[in-house]
Amino acid sequence: MTTVTVIGAGNLGSVVAGIAAKGGTGVQVLARDAEKAQAVAGPLGGSAGVVGDAVTGEIVVLAVPYAAFEDLIAAYPGAFDGKVLVDVSNPVDFSTFDDLLVPADSSAAKVLQDAVPGAKVVKAFNANFGATLGTGAAGPVQTAVLVAGDDADAKRTLVDLVTSAGLRAVDAGSLKRARELEAIGFLQITLAGAEKISWAGGFALVD
Amino acid sequence: MTTVTVIGAGNLGSVVAGIAAKGGTGVQVLARDAEKAQAVAGPLGGSAGVVGDAVTGEIVVLAVPYAAFEDLIAAYPGAFDGKVLVDVSNPVDFSTFDDLLVPADSSAAKVLQDAVPGAKVVKAFNANFGATLGTGAAGPVQTAVLVAGDDADAKRTLVDLVTSAGLRAVDAGSLKRARELEAIGFLQITLAGAEKISWAGGFALVD
Repeated sequence: MTTVTVIGAGNLGSVVAGIAAKGGTGVQVLARDAEKAQAVAGPLGGSAGVVGDAVTGEIVVLAVPYAAFEDLIAAYPGAFDGKVLVDVSNPVDFSTFDDLLVPADSSAAKVLQDAVPGAKVVKAFNANFGATLGTGAAGPVQTAVLVAGDDADAKRTLVDLVTSAGLRAVDAGSLKRARELEAIGFLQITLAGAEKISWAGGFALVD
Repeated sequence: MTTVTVIGAGNLGSVVAGIAAKGGTGVQVLARDAEKAQAVAGPLGGSAGVVGDAVTGEIVVLAVPYAAFEDLIAAYPGAFDGKVLVDVSNPVDFSTFDDLLVPADSSAAKVLQDAVPGAKVVKAFNANFGATLGTGAAGPVQTAVLVAGDDADAKRTLVDLVTSAGLRAVDAGSLKRARELEAIGFLQITLAGAEKISWAGGFALVD
């Protein structure tokens, strides 16, 4: 059982904070806007604060857009070292919906790991729409959270949190697989944007 | 309704030939080994032949490994011009299961299109395990064939064939999205290889 800090109080941040409250022993929510952080953390019995406040969680979830990573890392010099740092982002170029903002042979998670070498970066949640994380299902299929990372202990810590919260967690391999997870997240967003699927559906993992 | 040539008589070739027989007006199966081609085509009431024989279908499905594309194209100078050329491949480096054989910002489909500029290349079927194409379902979810391509008519021709055969077909956008489809195919193969899912499951598309 684990304490979790979620940075970001948007759609996915709120849902992941809910998972952390269910599966962990305490959740802290930090956002640029203290009221938004409080609105997410309050109902979960967690603590709230603003970006720049000390992170208290063993797991730190970056639930902010990829474009905000650089500023966020600058706001936390050294603070992520030794932490399980969870990247939930889909680095889509939202001006075109046709490209990613990261090098094609890399990923947001890899860029993050390179920027914060002391952290144990894990990619997770990006291939799930928020609604399926909230309800625990995509249509008739239990929601599966795909988790990729190079540090086995960090990955296990996150897998345990997710399963303790009642969701399925699946080890998707090394952090290199974040490239493929971000491709899935990207395609899923384009399919929902084109109304081929709803924002409550997406790619469900079937045994 | 359409005639289809399937080149390749392996697992996926057989399944796609079955879809073509159901959804189209005739199927031709070509393989290096005439007996294997006949074994697939015979029960479907189709014609069989060897690679190098004239292709008779309006749709030509390349159901051979990506590594065999170059030889196959060399065996068919000009023959694919004007055809709907369907790429079902997952260009995985099977010696490592950790990389693709195509440039990270490209795809097997794009490489194929560049090699055969006169053809209308469509990416399809690569994100479906053969079993889910055969049964029409991945667990409780109807099998969805994701189809990407730059030629709207070619894409529609293939979508019609797939839906006529009783499967769901979903327009996944331009041929550029083949990069993401191949990432899904790749990840799905690594998950099955690691026994996280079975070869009868995979990523199912939920509305």
